[in-house]
Amino acid sequence: MTAPLTREACAALDRDDPLAFARDRFDLPEGVIYLDGNSLGALPRATADALAQQTQEAWGRGLIRSWNSAGWIDAPLRVGARIARLIGAGADEVVVTDSTSVNLFKLASAAVALRPGRRVILSEPGNFPTDLYMLQGLCAQLGGAVELKCVPRDRIAEALDETVAVLVLTHVHYTSGEVFDMAGLTARAQAAGALTLWDLSHSTGALPMDLTGAGADLAVGCGYKYLNGGPGAPAFAYVARRHQDGLRQPLSGWMGHAAPFAFVDDYQPAAGIGRVLCGTPSVLAMTALDCGVATFDGVEMAQVRAKSMSLSGLFLDLLEARLPGVFQLVSPRNAADRGSHVSLAHPDGYPIMAALIADGVIGDFRAPDRLRFGFTPLYLSHTDVFDAVEILVRIMREERWRDRRFAVRQAVT
Amino acid sequence: MTAPLTREACAALDRDDPLAFARDRFDLPEGVIYLDGNSLGALPRATADALAQQTQEAWGRGLIRSWNSAGWIDAPLRVGARIARLIGAGADEVVVTDSTSVNLFKLASAAVALRPGRRVILSEPGNFPTDLYMLQGLCAQLGGAVELKCVPRDRIAEALDETVAVLVLTHVHYTSGEVFDMAGLTARAQAAGALTLWDLSHSTGALPMDLTGAGADLAVGCGYKYLNGGPGAPAFAYVARRHQDGLRQPLSGWMGHAAPFAFVDDYQPAAGIGRVLCGTPSVLAMTALDCGVATFDGVEMAQVRAKSMSLSGLFLDLLEARLPGVFQLVSPRNAADRGSHVSLAHPDGYPIMAALIADGVIGDFRAPDRLRFGFTPLYLSHTDVFDAVEILVRIMREERWRDRRFAVRQAVT
Repeated sequence: MTAPLTREACAALDRDDPLAFARDRFDLPEGVIYLDGNSLGALPRATADALAQQTQEAWGRGLIRSWNSAGWIDAPLRVGARIARLIGAGADEVVVTDSTSVNLFKLASAAVALRPGRRVILSEPGNFPTDLYMLQGLCAQLGGAVELKCVPRDRIAEALDETVAVLVLTHVHYTSGEVFDMAGLTARAQAAGALTLWDLSHSTGALPMDLTGAGADLAVGCGYKYLNGGPGAPAFAYVARRHQDGLRQPLSGWMGHAAPFAFVDDYQPAAGIGRVLCGTPSVLAMTALDCGVATFDGVEMAQVRAKSMSLSGLFLDLLEARLPGVFQLVSPRNAADRGSHVSLAHPDGYPIMAALIADGVIGDFRAPDRLRFGFTPLYLSHTDVFDAVEILVRIMREERWRDRRFAVRQAVT
Repeated sequence: MTAPLTREACAALDRDDPLAFARDRFDLPEGVIYLDGNSLGALPRATADALAQQTQEAWGRGLIRSWNSAGWIDAPLRVGARIARLIGAGADEVVVTDSTSVNLFKLASAAVALRPGRRVILSEPGNFPTDLYMLQGLCAQLGGAVELKCVPRDRIAEALDETVAVLVLTHVHYTSGEVFDMAGLTARAQAAGALTLWDLSHSTGALPMDLTGAGADLAVGCGYKYLNGGPGAPAFAYVARRHQDGLRQPLSGWMGHAAPFAFVDDYQPAAGIGRVLCGTPSVLAMTALDCGVATFDGVEMAQVRAKSMSLSGLFLDLLEARLPGVFQLVSPRNAADRGSHVSLAHPDGYPIMAALIADGVIGDFRAPDRLRFGFTPLYLSHTDVFDAVEILVRIMREERWRDRRFAVRQAVT
């Protein structure tokens, strides 16, 4: 890509942007350039009214009746079907429930049960920590019958042997942004008799996926990043149709029962993807997630991907031109090889990011030294990226990040 | 109790009600007498504004910064400490997280791990189904190393032997409303070397408890019933201080890590009750729960209990006077032996409840034949109870429930 390096050229790109209309779907604060939608998506304009309606009308007036009359009971499947389109899955293969961590536990357990005699869960070091933590918890609970084995990404293919029950990977890495070849690794795993479980937290809403085409077995993903579902939004789980009837997951709560309101003593799993449900879901959280997913209405993921690559490519081009050699690029330089965020390393990454945030450019920091910038095509423009880099240039040139106040660590960094 | 059986006498009781002020904390619909707060609590007046603030200000304006600046990250412990007062626990013994079902799985798993060599999880048939389902899921996952044994409540004490790892019971039964003797059974279990895990879903906010005094080991409870936290509100978990340092639960997600933002590969549990956390909690759902718990501010649970017994006693006195022999009482007649709801059996329970709801008296139905009526002292009056019985009398005398429209079953019944 030959990037335009003037603000005027950026404005010209914005005028031709087929996704420019989507920015008006969000309620963005003045004076902020938000480059952290990969961690917490921005607020959709529709969300506040939808929450008020659910609260004051459906809950306040309808009370318990709204489980039927307001469609609360069907929401996990209904919102799941909306997400399915974004990840290339069947509408009956996705359900919204619990958190990404909890769903990973359910599906990793189920995968192990589907591959008796195989004692390895394969992943990579540096995978998103909660994924590793949940797998460690599962292995400890199974008392040594299964072990977690982590090998570097360039050795995963060769580690797929007859001992592996399931390969658990994050499709787009949470810091580097590197993208795994989902179809290739799925085929490789399946050839070895293993299942795949993909964490799509940093891919859903960021780039096109084709879970059906890739033959993916199982997946989980996050609702509060690119899906704009709000802080701590419910997560989703995907189970390929062919695995649903045989799936047994240990968190067998009443919402996943074949007849939850029969109130019988014995668990019988619901038909289909519904058996991944567990307890009663938060209707308010689900409502906000539904509004977040709706920000993708009428949007094709191919358009999102094209703009994402253009925005993050522009960012790197500008950095190279304006701040050569200042940051180490952690993410792949080739846009096709990374997701929708970019990570830079700098020994003073923490105070630099704090100074940026103080000046209205919000990214985030990941230990030990990573500055992370997310590019969300629905609500960012090329001129936003240009302006953000200008602010970063000023901070670096004036060494504003050396101000003592930027050294104070916050609880969440 | 000598109940007054005239509307005037009820109004006199209401004038003397020390909790009368609390009704104004709720936004109740006109023309409805809500006797289902045991299933879904009513909407607090403060909730809509609090949600709007969290949505439009904390999320919309603050974006990712609000994990620190709006105190999101501390909410599970902060709201847990508020709930602790209502159940007689220490402020550092309760955390809000996930669903009741998920929390039951965590703590039952932890209990089994704390009692190696003991292979029985003891419960009762007819316990709340999701509790049994989760325990079945756990036993299946542990591959026969542990089994679920259900014995009738009058034989639980004798079944507590050296094989039992943990006794899992619902303190107030979800249909009958019967109350277990928490202190007595806890002592009996502990004398046998077992732990106790109490499900407080139908007791929290309904009657006083003293978990500390009872020496309770572990407990879980629901946020959307008497706590008024909204449909599918997050649940809570209690771990006695003496067990916290040794507690290992399998859903070891990043929010329960000692240093979640260090992003290391190995799980290290947080100190204290925080290790029961798993994934990222929904801030919106937590906000609504906080407002629900706040409806108990300045209220003593002893006052709640006294009014609850008065309301449900009045209901039964009126039924016996006005509809003798029509319903079979499933709950204990003695108010001290039941929680804050009453169940009646009738072969046409479903259409009778449907007719009641159509006439503005909202209770619920539980298969196969139970009509369930909840008495929530914060927002119900004695005249409400009087009026509800009048409507029930008219429905039964005029056989209005035989209308065909009341036979149509809804998804959630």
